[in-house]
Amino acid sequence: MRKKYDIDDILEKGEELLRQQGYNNTGIEDILKACGIPKGSFYNFFKSKEDFGVKALDHYGDKQYEFVSSILINPNLSPLQRLKQFYNTVIGVNVSEDCKYGCLVGNLSQEMGGINDNIGLAADRNFKRIIKLIEACVAEAQEAGEVRNDFPAGELADYLHTSFYGALVRSKAGQNPQPFTHFSKMAFEFLEIK
Amino acid sequence: MRKKYDIDDILEKGEELLRQQGYNNTGIEDILKACGIPKGSFYNFFKSKEDFGVKALDHYGDKQYEFVSSILINPNLSPLQRLKQFYNTVIGVNVSEDCKYGCLVGNLSQEMGGINDNIGLAADRNFKRIIKLIEACVAEAQEAGEVRNDFPAGELADYLHTSFYGALVRSKAGQNPQPFTHFSKMAFEFLEIK
Repeated sequence: MRKKYDIDDILEKGEELLRQQGYNNTGIEDILKACGIPKGSFYNFFKSKEDFGVKALDHYGDKQYEFVSSILINPNLSPLQRLKQFYNTVIGVNVSEDCKYGCLVGNLSQEMGGINDNIGLAADRNFKRIIKLIEACVAEAQEAGEVRNDFPAGELADYLHTSFYGALVRSKAGQNPQPFTHFSKMAFEFLEIK
Repeated sequence: MRKKYDIDDILEKGEELLRQQGYNNTGIEDILKACGIPKGSFYNFFKSKEDFGVKALDHYGDKQYEFVSSILINPNLSPLQRLKQFYNTVIGVNVSEDCKYGCLVGNLSQEMGGINDNIGLAADRNFKRIIKLIEACVAEAQEAGEVRNDFPAGELADYLHTSFYGALVRSKAGQNPQPFTHFSKMAFEFLEIK
């Protein structure tokens, strides 16, 4: 009987390689090896490496969406506390990895956005899904009087998370958590009503 | 007589390839072809591709430093106007390239920072050189009463430029200038005393 392979398992392992090593630095052979699958099985699931990259971004985006939701709807914290907890948690993950790997969405936006439209657009749509979650929490924080309300929640959320992506870039350059600390301080100084 | 090759000319052409295509997507053969040089000449100048990457970042950083200086010391504009002109100019360049290529320093920070220390550190030091120029201009703007002074100029400059690097990431994902417009609006809302 032929062994059955699970697409989620391949995406899970393969997307970690892309996140840690980059897209162009990861060959299909590396993915096959990490997943322990033959080449034919890879091509049963994916038309090409590009197709794998797009599906990896969507799979990663699904996990991000669940993870971010779980923090941003926690009824035991105020909306502003949830926003802070979200960034603290993500920063903690990055620090535990010595700031080496960052976020697949940010990494592939920058590495691939200019040279592969399908991968760039997959990164873009997965960023925007997360922004919607942050926007809802910012809107709640505005209603609760915790966050400035002179701009629409969507605009504040977009600026907040885009700035965080800058901190991700900077933290990788020096493998240094300082850009995260500075982001948290300044971004919430901008947002928070004290 | 053997033809002489100019290291600056090789760096100039090669760094454009790295900026546009990425580090791992650019082979030494691509650089040789773009520069019209034989492999031996490349290795006369550079010990390895990594060495080329580091020197390309420093060469690019030198050009950035001159360019940024020329805008940020313009005595015909107020310090705040200079800061705005700087970002408007850089955004203009990115828009003219359909937001495809971004900044070599940001690109290699993200693509290489976690997997190659020497390239990551070269990106880091070239980012920090630019921050020093922005910091000096922010300090002038604070003295002129144009920019908030409840934080040291260096902290504001770092947050400003790090946030801009987030906008660079986002603009590449969708090849879309909107993140730049949004950055300009929100970053100066945060900085400016009105």
